[in-house]
Amino acid sequence: MLPKALSDLIQSLALLPGVGPRTAERYAYYLFRSNRKISNEIAGSLSRLHDGVKSCPITFALIDADEELSPLYTERDKTTVLVVEEPLDIYAIEQTNQYKGTYHVLGGALSPIDGITPEQLHIDELVSRVEKDNVKEIIIATNPSVEGESTALLLEKILHEKYPDLNLTRLARGLPLGVDLSYADQITLSAALENRTSL
Amino acid sequence: MLPKALSDLIQSLALLPGVGPRTAERYAYYLFRSNRKISNEIAGSLSRLHDGVKSCPITFALIDADEELSPLYTERDKTTVLVVEEPLDIYAIEQTNQYKGTYHVLGGALSPIDGITPEQLHIDELVSRVEKDNVKEIIIATNPSVEGESTALLLEKILHEKYPDLNLTRLARGLPLGVDLSYADQITLSAALENRTSL
Repeated sequence: MLPKALSDLIQSLALLPGVGPRTAERYAYYLFRSNRKISNEIAGSLSRLHDGVKSCPITFALIDADEELSPLYTERDKTTVLVVEEPLDIYAIEQTNQYKGTYHVLGGALSPIDGITPEQLHIDELVSRVEKDNVKEIIIATNPSVEGESTALLLEKILHEKYPDLNLTRLARGLPLGVDLSYADQITLSAALENRTSL
Repeated sequence: MLPKALSDLIQSLALLPGVGPRTAERYAYYLFRSNRKISNEIAGSLSRLHDGVKSCPITFALIDADEELSPLYTERDKTTVLVVEEPLDIYAIEQTNQYKGTYHVLGGALSPIDGITPEQLHIDELVSRVEKDNVKEIIIATNPSVEGESTALLLEKILHEKYPDLNLTRLARGLPLGVDLSYADQITLSAALENRTSL
């Protein structure tokens, strides 16, 4: 019914996460109505994506294909390691402009339902960094979800057993900016109360 | 901070309608993690889009670039014309499998705020079809929005003046499937009551 070029595009855009046929239709029709420069620009960046990006073999952060190691490793204080689930979490932390140490990307969080076991996460690589880089502190910054919490517990167990002197910390729990106290959940509010800071 | 190939892709995906930087990040990271076949497929359909699709010069429906006229014009009853705002509206009507006439795409709806005036819509082309194809009925199927309603009123005025005998109709207003009566708006409910059908 639709012109083939358009229905092909709708079908392929529907491969994106959370994009159903209606959204794909909307994107495709918008692209058709706009200047072809936009379609070409997206097409170009898509074709360059896989050859232009790779993972740093130490931190597993994303780096340019022509880099060897992440500058977030080579140019930073290697004795502090902040552990995140996914590469993009790094950029959220970097935007605070407050952290000077290095990172370690686990590549996900424990999730038996999705079949993600400890073996699939970069845990061994993290453990081996402790001795190699003489790491003093590991900041666990997994997501505050069930999966993130159980991953944090596992890391704590493994690291404490092997390096009892290592300083293990995690991001503070508390009230986020702009939340209405009466809407905050009990766990967050308990944490905020328990970890209250003096004025 | 991000690898260039990835940030380029994020920037270009953010050109899509309703896609902000976070959604673009999510799409880009998903594409990076998936098989490169998916990126290549989307890139390919994007590059073929503009050369593969054009507008039918009579109905303004979208057609394959190698077609001359829309089959929805050449193979259908030309004496009935259903008028829609956008090309994709046609496919919603076609999916009912109930309509055997042809279509006419206006290319939008009147909207002084967005600078869309009657001259920018394919109204003259519609008027000229009436005599040429000996049109008996025009079904106005603009959207039930302020813009769609004022476009319908304008069409009614122009067509009635010029062709007083032409049968002008519009899609029925009433309750859509699955709506809870207590949530229906007053205008819809008034229309449903007024246009009630006998059992």
